[in-house]
Amino acid sequence: MLSIRSQELLVENERDLANAPGYGLSAAEIDRLRLTPSRLDGMAKALREVALLPDPIGETIDSTVRPNGLRVSRVRVPLGVVFFIFESRPNVTVDAASLCVKSGNAVILRGGKEALHSNLALHRILRDALAEVGLPVHAVQLVETVERDVVGELLKLGNLIDVTIPRGGKSLIERVAAEATMPVIKHFDGICHVYVDQSADQEMALRILQNSKCQRPGVCNAAESLLVHAAIADSFLPRAAEMLQGQGVAVRGCEQTRRWIPWATAANEQDYRTEYLDLILSSRVVEDLDAAIDHIDQYGSHHTETIVTNDFAAAERFLMEVDSAAVLVNASTRFNDGGEFGLGAEIGISTDKFHARGPCGLRELTSYKWIARGSGQVRE
Amino acid sequence: MLSIRSQELLVENERDLANAPGYGLSAAEIDRLRLTPSRLDGMAKALREVALLPDPIGETIDSTVRPNGLRVSRVRVPLGVVFFIFESRPNVTVDAASLCVKSGNAVILRGGKEALHSNLALHRILRDALAEVGLPVHAVQLVETVERDVVGELLKLGNLIDVTIPRGGKSLIERVAAEATMPVIKHFDGICHVYVDQSADQEMALRILQNSKCQRPGVCNAAESLLVHAAIADSFLPRAAEMLQGQGVAVRGCEQTRRWIPWATAANEQDYRTEYLDLILSSRVVEDLDAAIDHIDQYGSHHTETIVTNDFAAAERFLMEVDSAAVLVNASTRFNDGGEFGLGAEIGISTDKFHARGPCGLRELTSYKWIARGSGQVRE
Repeated sequence: MLSIRSQELLVENERDLANAPGYGLSAAEIDRLRLTPSRLDGMAKALREVALLPDPIGETIDSTVRPNGLRVSRVRVPLGVVFFIFESRPNVTVDAASLCVKSGNAVILRGGKEALHSNLALHRILRDALAEVGLPVHAVQLVETVERDVVGELLKLGNLIDVTIPRGGKSLIERVAAEATMPVIKHFDGICHVYVDQSADQEMALRILQNSKCQRPGVCNAAESLLVHAAIADSFLPRAAEMLQGQGVAVRGCEQTRRWIPWATAANEQDYRTEYLDLILSSRVVEDLDAAIDHIDQYGSHHTETIVTNDFAAAERFLMEVDSAAVLVNASTRFNDGGEFGLGAEIGISTDKFHARGPCGLRELTSYKWIARGSGQVRE
Repeated sequence: MLSIRSQELLVENERDLANAPGYGLSAAEIDRLRLTPSRLDGMAKALREVALLPDPIGETIDSTVRPNGLRVSRVRVPLGVVFFIFESRPNVTVDAASLCVKSGNAVILRGGKEALHSNLALHRILRDALAEVGLPVHAVQLVETVERDVVGELLKLGNLIDVTIPRGGKSLIERVAAEATMPVIKHFDGICHVYVDQSADQEMALRILQNSKCQRPGVCNAAESLLVHAAIADSFLPRAAEMLQGQGVAVRGCEQTRRWIPWATAANEQDYRTEYLDLILSSRVVEDLDAAIDHIDQYGSHHTETIVTNDFAAAERFLMEVDSAAVLVNASTRFNDGGEFGLGAEIGISTDKFHARGPCGLRELTSYKWIARGSGQVRE
């Protein structure tokens, strides 16, 4: 239906694009807001992929037969009503609606004001599509005003809304978490690390560093910090310098780093705590694995870290001792993603430990209930 | 060690018992506060049972090999620091500490002021036991003051405490949920229903009703409300009346109920919304299964409900359509319990849908992280 009614969507999107300079959007932001026939096809394709995912609802998660014969199981159920707050990319409107409906939830969508007309049109189409297949049209609702107060009012409705998922800047998420009277799935910074261990295959390390830092520097699972074992700083850092320079990456390094990358500027404490989201990398030479783990614990945001190593014990220790949503060995940090981890699609990447951690797909939008089938059992 | 140092514990417990009348505790409350050698043995036994449960930490929850060869899994990890607020039963101190330590968490215990001396002594012993086996003694901490403000201060520490679990009255839980800056596992009312369907085995229904209502009326999974299918009201209610009268249960019924239980008083709307925690039962005759499900949805607290039936379709519809933490067929509501459902032990029964629902044991005190083992994979 997105494809069939593309004309209607493109017209409404034009209205948003015309208003965009008034909202002070940058060229990149305007580009993200723009719908094109091929982007609409992409949205329709993503929607069909979600439709084809296995239905999570009703799945028996686990079960047991008790000594008294009671057959107990946990069965997956929807969370209920999801309040989803997001930035001004219209494809997110469709993604979020499809994931929530597929997982049996109702969703209240609150998009960025810059995309209001696009979202109103998308919502009309989603509603019509729900009606056509016999689902309740109110399963997908849109906040049809851009007033900011509305968010605060909705966040008070902890008795009616089961979870809020805010996507956007840190200040938005902090505000939502502070005001919400229901649980919030939070999606904070990714200050992600690539640690190159003494025993690393250096070719592999270069490839992983390049991919983690440069493939898409503006996303949360891109690397912001490089840690290098002191024993290989002299061999690895000059090669890294060449690669990074070729990719146009600015480096802010410790004293040791700057010995081997003379063009790097000096890093201060704050650099190690910064999510650049840009072609900038902080770099530090560490004494050993323990120092790497300590650095990640102290400066990182517990999002995504990778070790490049061929040392089995080092790999296993890194996996077990680094307390991040995703911890990898010999792979790019960019893999911390719902699609890449096999969830089919994602509504966000949680930096919480409660309920859902890391990529959130259909399963993370569900709860469960206990069911028990008996034959007259009573408790002694 | 609880058994070895029982003398020390009994002396400190005596101090609490001596102060108890000053706190206005009832005889039943004083009894719950009292430690005896046999109760200490029970606590030590429960602790040993938790110690013998399988270690949840490090368990691979699920795993997959991606098309690019990346081996992805989710591995169970502790939540972190648990803040546990509870009433004045000293056995809960030991239960909570053992469950938190076994699941790899640290716990901050805040017991009722009436049990302060008992808890101080128990905490000394727990700390010594941790030291003896080489675990960090700070894994179990006790709030050593009875000032109420301390709770508010701790609830502000969302950056240091990962979850708060309050146990106690509704007002305490509401206050904690409102003030907490971290997730809260809530444990609200149990307004639990027994629905006797048209096709029920009436002998079984009487047994289940008796057990659900009378076996331990003061707990959250005891039944508060009886629903009876209209087609069997004339045969079932007189028999129920006899049983309930024999058990000393007061009945507050609808007009139809009072036709068959003449000594029942008239129920008002509020009766159907009340958690009596006493030998009082509200009762209503309903037209059919739909009316029973509607009543439960409208008046219940989504805690525990059971249907007594021999109708397969009715049983399955009840299981799927009743939105409660536990839904049972032909079994007592009293089975909604960590021990009875096979968790080994429980720290509470969650009435939330988020993170944990129903009985919370070791697993519910954990989170997970994503780990991925690769051989140099980068993202296209």
